Amino acid sequence: MATATPEAFMARALTLARRGLYTTDPNPRVGCVLVKRRQIVGEGYHVRAGEPHAEIHALSDAGGAAKGATAYVTLEPCAHHGRTGPCAQALVDAGVKKVVAAMQDPHAAVAGKGFAMLREAGIEVECGLLEDEARALNPGFLSRMTRGRPFVRMKMAMSLDGRTAMRSGESQWITGPRARTEVQRLRARSSAVISGVDSIIFDNSRLTVRASQLDLEDGEAIARRQPLRVIVDSTLRLPLAAACLSEPGRTLIASCSRDAERRTRLEAAGAEVLCLPSGADGRVDLVALLEYLAREEQTNEVLLETGATLAGGMLDAELVDEMQLFVAPTLLGGEARPLVALPGLERMAQQRPLDILDMRAVGRDWRIIARPQRQSP
Amino acid sequence: MATATPEAFMARALTLARRGLYTTDPNPRVGCVLVKRRQIVGEGYHVRAGEPHAEIHALSDAGGAAKGATAYVTLEPCAHHGRTGPCAQALVDAGVKKVVAAMQDPHAAVAGKGFAMLREAGIEVECGLLEDEARALNPGFLSRMTRGRPFVRMKMAMSLDGRTAMRSGESQWITGPRARTEVQRLRARSSAVISGVDSIIFDNSRLTVRASQLDLEDGEAIARRQPLRVIVDSTLRLPLAAACLSEPGRTLIASCSRDAERRTRLEAAGAEVLCLPSGADGRVDLVALLEYLAREEQTNEVLLETGATLAGGMLDAELVDEMQLFVAPTLLGGEARPLVALPGLERMAQQRPLDILDMRAVGRDWRIIARPQRQSP
Repeated sequence: MATATPEAFMARALTLARRGLYTTDPNPRVGCVLVKRRQIVGEGYHVRAGEPHAEIHALSDAGGAAKGATAYVTLEPCAHHGRTGPCAQALVDAGVKKVVAAMQDPHAAVAGKGFAMLREAGIEVECGLLEDEARALNPGFLSRMTRGRPFVRMKMAMSLDGRTAMRSGESQWITGPRARTEVQRLRARSSAVISGVDSIIFDNSRLTVRASQLDLEDGEAIARRQPLRVIVDSTLRLPLAAACLSEPGRTLIASCSRDAERRTRLEAAGAEVLCLPSGADGRVDLVALLEYLAREEQTNEVLLETGATLAGGMLDAELVDEMQLFVAPTLLGGEARPLVALPGLERMAQQRPLDILDMRAVGRDWRIIARPQRQSP
Repeated sequence: MATATPEAFMARALTLARRGLYTTDPNPRVGCVLVKRRQIVGEGYHVRAGEPHAEIHALSDAGGAAKGATAYVTLEPCAHHGRTGPCAQALVDAGVKKVVAAMQDPHAAVAGKGFAMLREAGIEVECGLLEDEARALNPGFLSRMTRGRPFVRMKMAMSLDGRTAMRSGESQWITGPRARTEVQRLRARSSAVISGVDSIIFDNSRLTVRASQLDLEDGEAIARRQPLRVIVDSTLRLPLAAACLSEPGRTLIASCSRDAERRTRLEAAGAEVLCLPSGADGRVDLVALLEYLAREEQTNEVLLETGATLAGGMLDAELVDEMQLFVAPTLLGGEARPLVALPGLERMAQQRPLDILDMRAVGRDWRIIARPQRQSP
C-alpha cells in the first residue's frame, strides 16, 4: 500500500469487490478491508450468492486482529437475515471500532438499518468515501433497487459507416476476436441477455457464455452461471429447433401471443413462455418486460444484443442506460443494415444526442461507450 | 536545441516547413536549417510560390556563417531555373560543406539533378533522414509528381450511426464549431475542393476558406488564396444563383454535357466549364477529372466534400487516399442519409476494409483519419 490513506484502503476494497464481477449475481459486488495501525489486517469480497458476504470473509481473514480495527466496505453492511446472518452484527461482535462505507445500501431491508445497528453498538460510522466508484460497480443492482428495472446495456457491432449486417442479414464477422471476447465478458457479467426473435432466426445465436472465449483464468467457473436468455417474440415465431433452446441455462420467451398450442410446443422444446401486455404497436410492452425481470428474476444488468428494430424501440422508450459499440475499421455501404431504426426521426432537432464516456482500441476494432441523453424532463 | 543530433536538426527543418502548410501551393512545403559546430546559424522555409525557396531564406539568415556549414533540408535542393534560380547552385556559392536531405525531389526537373550538382562541386550529400516525415508533409505534391493525380482527402461529418443528413437533406449542423474549424483548415491546405452538384444545390455551400473560422494567427493572409472549387455536374444542373459563383476565387464545373447554351449562361454567371469524357455510368469520368486537375491546375491536395453518391463513386474507383470523418455523439436513425453509397456491395466478403491512422477528440466530436485498403493488386 503506497500511502495508507482512507482513499487507498477503500480503493483496495473496490478492487476486491471487482473480483466478484462475474459471480455475485443477483447480489451486488462488495469488497471489505480491515485496517489497524494503518496496516491491512484482513480483507475479503463477496464471491457468490448464498456464500458469505465480504465483511465475513475479511473478519475471518483477520481473526483476532479485527478487534479495534476500522472496516472499509464498499456497501453498507446488511442488517437483515438473508441467506447469511447480518454483517453489521458480525462487525459488532468482532469488536470493530469504526466502519467507513462507500455508500448506503438501497435494498429496502438495509437502507440505513445497517449503519443504525452499528451506531447503536457504539461504532463510529462514515459514509460516502469513493461513492461514485462504488456505484459504478453495481449499476444493475442499484437500478433494480431504486427504479424497479434492470440497467440496460446495449451492445452492437458495426462498421465505421454504422452498419450491423449486409442487406441479406449476413454479419459474421464484422468485428475481430478481441471485440468478441469483450462481448462474451459483457454477457458473463449480465443477469440476462435480451434479443429480438428476428436476430435469433437469422443468426441462430446461442446467447451463451463460452468459457473458452472469455480469456479469463476462472472462465470455467464463470460460465457455470449462464445469463437468462430473453427473446422478445410478440407472436411466438421462434423456431422449435433454435440452438439457444438446447443450451445450458434458461430461455424465456417474452410474448403477447395467446396461441396456447404454439406455447405448449415451445415449452416442450425447452423454452419458458411469458405472456406480457402489448404496447400501442401491438408488440411486447418493453417497460413491462423489464419490470418483470427486475421483480421476478432479480435481473440486475441486461445485455441487449439485437437488431435495429428492437434496439430502436428500446432507445425510443428511453430504456437504454449505456451503449457499447464495437466499431470495425471497414465500410459496408448504404444498402447494408442500419444500427438503429428510429421511425419518425425526420428533423435535426429530433436527433438523439449521446454522451461519449470512453473510446478505445480493442484489437483491430474500437469500442465506444456512450450514454443516451435523457429526452424527457 | 536539446540534443544537437542530425535528427534534431532535420526535425527543426520539418517544423519550419510546416509553417508553409497553407501558403506554398502549388509548390511543396520545404524547410532548411544551416548548422555549424552543432549550432544553428541560419534557417528558413518556403512561404509562397514565386518567392524564394527555403534554402535561400536560410542562406540569407546565416550570411557569412553559411561557409563551411551543413545544410539540413526537407527536400532535395532544386537544380533548375524556375521562378527562382537553382538552390543547389546557391548552396555551392555560399560555401556549404555538406547537404543532408530528407528525400529526393520527384519533380522531373530535379529528380537527383540537385544532388548531382552539389556533388560535382565537391559537397558531401546524404539523403533519407526522416524521409517518412518529409513525405507526409507533401502528400499532394508527391502524388501529382509520381501518379499524375492529386492526393484525395475525403471529409465527412456524420452521426455515430454513420448518417450525414436527415432524409430531407437537412444537416446543419451535425458537428460542432471545433470540427468545423478543422474542416476550414483542411480546405485551406488544399489546392482544390471537389463537391457534387446535389450537395451544392441542397446546402448552397460556398466551399470557401473563411479567415474568421480558421482560428489561426495569419488567417487573413491564408484566406487570400482560395482553393479551386470543383463541382462535379455531369448535366450542368448547377443553379446560376449558386452562392459559390459569386465568391472570391474560381469555380470549375466538371461536366460531360454538350449543352452550349447552358454552358454560356453558367460562364456568364462566373463559372468555368470543363467538358470531360463520361464513364460507363454516363457521369463524369473521375480519373480524367483528377488527371486534368494535376496536369492543368497543378492540384496537389484535393478535399472531397460531398454526399454519398460521389463519395461512393470515388471510393469505388479507389481514388480516395485518406478519409477524415468527423463523428458527432448523436444518433440520426435508419431513415437518415448514409455515409457512402457502395452499390453492388452485397456480401461481407466485399466489404471495404480501412486502416485507422488516428482517432481523437475535436471539441465535442471525434475525428477519425482512415485510409482505404487497396482492393486491386
